[in-house]
Amino acid sequence: MTINEKTVKSERIYEGKVINLRVDMVELPDRKYSKREIVEHGGAVGVVAVTPDGKLLFVKQFRKAVEGDLLEIPAGKIEKDEDPKDCALRELEEETGYTTSKITKMLDFYTSPGFSNEVIHIYLAEELEQGEACPDEDEYIEVISLTLEEMLELIKKGEVKDSKTIVAILYYQNVLLQER
Amino acid sequence: MTINEKTVKSERIYEGKVINLRVDMVELPDRKYSKREIVEHGGAVGVVAVTPDGKLLFVKQFRKAVEGDLLEIPAGKIEKDEDPKDCALRELEEETGYTTSKITKMLDFYTSPGFSNEVIHIYLAEELEQGEACPDEDEYIEVISLTLEEMLELIKKGEVKDSKTIVAILYYQNVLLQER
Repeated sequence: MTINEKTVKSERIYEGKVINLRVDMVELPDRKYSKREIVEHGGAVGVVAVTPDGKLLFVKQFRKAVEGDLLEIPAGKIEKDEDPKDCALRELEEETGYTTSKITKMLDFYTSPGFSNEVIHIYLAEELEQGEACPDEDEYIEVISLTLEEMLELIKKGEVKDSKTIVAILYYQNVLLQER
Repeated sequence: MTINEKTVKSERIYEGKVINLRVDMVELPDRKYSKREIVEHGGAVGVVAVTPDGKLLFVKQFRKAVEGDLLEIPAGKIEKDEDPKDCALRELEEETGYTTSKITKMLDFYTSPGFSNEVIHIYLAEELEQGEACPDEDEYIEVISLTLEEMLELIKKGEVKDSKTIVAILYYQNVLLQER
């Protein structure tokens, strides 16, 4: 049986640029209590972007949290009051230079629901038109285009380490392409 | 082009039960600087567990961070100095009661590399033997067994919201079962 955990105390530890941290004391059955550390995040988007020649777009960038380069789908944080779809179009253009008017929602999920409320919305962008990339001033990214088969091979070899990218690509191959 | 971000200052904000928070100041090209908020996590495991009658085991539990019940594969945090494979066997038994000696690594990935170093190791557990579940004293979970097809249908309908569970199930269907 699952239960709801009622908050009996909540302490704000940190308010930052990307995340906030709070610690909640929650009440459990039998008058027990437990601490829940919660990282608040405003949500993000990721984009499976199909180029006119049938390849998919990826970005390679240094991720400080893991001290290494990761290969990911184009993605970014949702700004305050921004619609996730607008965010997807904005991040796609900023990171890769491509624009489109054909964008459809694929799925959304929590990246780490054990300690964070971060939700990621994944979109499919098709009928892309090439433009010029303009990443944020503290972003240094390399755009890489791969066929679906090349990307699946990298996933099988364990060379793709970003959860949203694995979800998006396997979902695209497994669910979306099967239905078309 | 990607770059390495050298830490020029690091501040510890919080040390907790599940996570720590630190804020690093990093140096970028052209003598620019930026702040990186980093949630440190000791890593976790998730288990795709196949029962003798060919079903897969899931757990449903309340997740305070997202204020709702989530359907997930059996999973849990790696304890200090614990081998991830031992952790997978321990969590499987604690949460579902099942034990096995046939356990193989599937893949690992970062859940949210934009702000956290949390890595999740996914294992496949087969030839399960039934025993008695003994969850942690602050865990209230319901064990649910589903066929792969039933779970895929829930993913397609958007009813599965946990990234590790979507990764694990799509990888199991897409990569592992294809290779056998």
